[in-house]
Amino acid sequence: MSERSAGGLRFDPEDPVLARVAWSRICEPGDADAYQLVAAAGPVAALRAALNGTAGCRRWRVRLPDADPVRDLATLGRFGGRLLVPGAPEWPAALDDLGAWAPFCLWVRGPLQAAAACRRSVAVVGSRAATGYGEHLAALIGAGCAERGFTVVSGAAYGIDGAAHRGSLSGGGPTLAVLACGVDRSYPRGHERLIERIAADGLVLSEVPPGSAPTRWRFVERNRLIAAMSRATVVVEATWRSGALVTAHRAGELGRPVGAVPGLVTAPTSAGCHRLLREGVATCVTDAAEVVELAAPIGEFLDPAAPDGEFRLPPDDRRVLDSLPVRRAAALASLSRVAGLEQATVASALGRLELQGLAVREPAGWRRDRSRGGA
Amino acid sequence: MSERSAGGLRFDPEDPVLARVAWSRICEPGDADAYQLVAAAGPVAALRAALNGTAGCRRWRVRLPDADPVRDLATLGRFGGRLLVPGAPEWPAALDDLGAWAPFCLWVRGPLQAAAACRRSVAVVGSRAATGYGEHLAALIGAGCAERGFTVVSGAAYGIDGAAHRGSLSGGGPTLAVLACGVDRSYPRGHERLIERIAADGLVLSEVPPGSAPTRWRFVERNRLIAAMSRATVVVEATWRSGALVTAHRAGELGRPVGAVPGLVTAPTSAGCHRLLREGVATCVTDAAEVVELAAPIGEFLDPAAPDGEFRLPPDDRRVLDSLPVRRAAALASLSRVAGLEQATVASALGRLELQGLAVREPAGWRRDRSRGGA
Repeated sequence: MSERSAGGLRFDPEDPVLARVAWSRICEPGDADAYQLVAAAGPVAALRAALNGTAGCRRWRVRLPDADPVRDLATLGRFGGRLLVPGAPEWPAALDDLGAWAPFCLWVRGPLQAAAACRRSVAVVGSRAATGYGEHLAALIGAGCAERGFTVVSGAAYGIDGAAHRGSLSGGGPTLAVLACGVDRSYPRGHERLIERIAADGLVLSEVPPGSAPTRWRFVERNRLIAAMSRATVVVEATWRSGALVTAHRAGELGRPVGAVPGLVTAPTSAGCHRLLREGVATCVTDAAEVVELAAPIGEFLDPAAPDGEFRLPPDDRRVLDSLPVRRAAALASLSRVAGLEQATVASALGRLELQGLAVREPAGWRRDRSRGGA
Repeated sequence: MSERSAGGLRFDPEDPVLARVAWSRICEPGDADAYQLVAAAGPVAALRAALNGTAGCRRWRVRLPDADPVRDLATLGRFGGRLLVPGAPEWPAALDDLGAWAPFCLWVRGPLQAAAACRRSVAVVGSRAATGYGEHLAALIGAGCAERGFTVVSGAAYGIDGAAHRGSLSGGGPTLAVLACGVDRSYPRGHERLIERIAADGLVLSEVPPGSAPTRWRFVERNRLIAAMSRATVVVEATWRSGALVTAHRAGELGRPVGAVPGLVTAPTSAGCHRLLREGVATCVTDAAEVVELAAPIGEFLDPAAPDGEFRLPPDDRRVLDSLPVRRAAALASLSRVAGLEQATVASALGRLELQGLAVREPAGWRRDRSRGGA
């Protein structure tokens, strides 16, 4: 613990980085007043206003005496982590889209470079209480995004989040976990090993300092970071009021594309996804290729394997094909009557159908080729 | 069979109704040239042009010698049917939206009045090769629409169509089957009893004369009638290239709302529905209430049972709730530190939380009410 300075503080409030760290300790995520003050005055002057009890700034004094940025940074260092502040090379430019709602700083652990990871990234989120179907798809999408070189961003929770991270790791891709607690903690406990794997290969980050507990409020605000750090957000499974919907709405507010994976309408675990689709918030996505299409600039990652349009014959050809008998060949005059088309029209249609292998010419006339499609 | 008239015809070509009937015999559905000619010149003058072999009108002569409108009407009469022509009281005004693509006439069987039935109507369509899930939903939606006073329009096919008609009948509602063959025929054969039930209680109709076979071309064009006669079209299950997608696109072209029921993305039977959702053609619908909402003028049939918005506390209240201990009550000063809010703010938040039953006041301070939600 650092010694107290003259102002009763444990740190030098004139150091801009320490001031940011202090702000991340004395404020809760999403505190709009604090963000605006820091954005307008800078962290040092803003802290001074809080210390002096300037009107409107007094409530931030409550936690100031306990704030100890030097100790927080030392804790981070023990976990091999590093601090990112706005403007630093590794700071993801995507976070600036949050405007005054951008975090004061980011506490990160892992070899992945945050700025680079967010350049091609997709958030894959959803319910903790997921079904086998949902986890299967989250893993498939996570792996498919990884194979296409996209970072999978999620919240390391049980259910969809965990399946998405694991899918990404299985696809050999970078994955990024945004926690609602300090990066020195593993929440949920059952995902301790998963979070350690992400910290070893990808990136674990948080806007709250080491030691912070994952409160419900922090979960809600954490979602804005997931949305902002991703080019698109996809909800795989979500109940009608799932927190994943908050992430989806935040992404939409930031102008990021939102996708939702449909499911059985009889499954409550897909009700939130269908809600997003119905309300026009999300686009329907069914596989990793469609997810990447959502996240990538238009034309950048077109999927060459997408199915083509409907197979349709021109009207006359279709009518002639309809009139062709399957077994015994029919003469041109008979086909003309059945199809209701002139003989010349029928003859030229038959020529085209023959070329496509749909009609067979015989001595007695024409019949359909049963071995081919079109029936 | 009628005697031949002077022009070698079996009927009086100057009778406007007989002329329309003849046109429905000598033309295939969707023959744009014929529709435009009849719309511009009227059926009688148009027929004269065909008879005289006027340039561009000769192809319609092919079937004219065999056309026998009087016999066709007699056949219809034997089945208890009736003929509808544009402008007649029972003619559905909705068909006029087809413009030049409106049918020449309709051959109908059943007690339902066509014009009235189309005023509150929903098309429920989909694949013949449906799954149990799809048929279950088609039946639920059919019954739910019937209960809300909506006519269910479909094509009497196996799978989704049949389930939708049966659902409507089970809900005691009117149902309307549009056939691709003559109304004297039952196609598919396995739906003979279902089609007879619809003819007994609802309405069976077709634009092709009695005796006509259900060709593929007629199926495709039949779909435009289903789309036009319905206020909205809903696809319950469809493969990537299902004919139900044609109906959906026709509905969209007519400015009618289109709905699609989502399903498992791993099911090929839902691929067409997801395609419609992805391409922005359809709105996601999950039950009959949402289908009716699609079909009804805005505000006319709002569902009072729709779930409300997300349960969200104001930020300060949520932070105070987060900071409340579950077991031992905490003093205001302690809560203020944990929440990072001034004591006055915490006190007023506690008051609101207490009113909602989320916080409990004790001699030592405050704790959370574990028996309630919000945890």
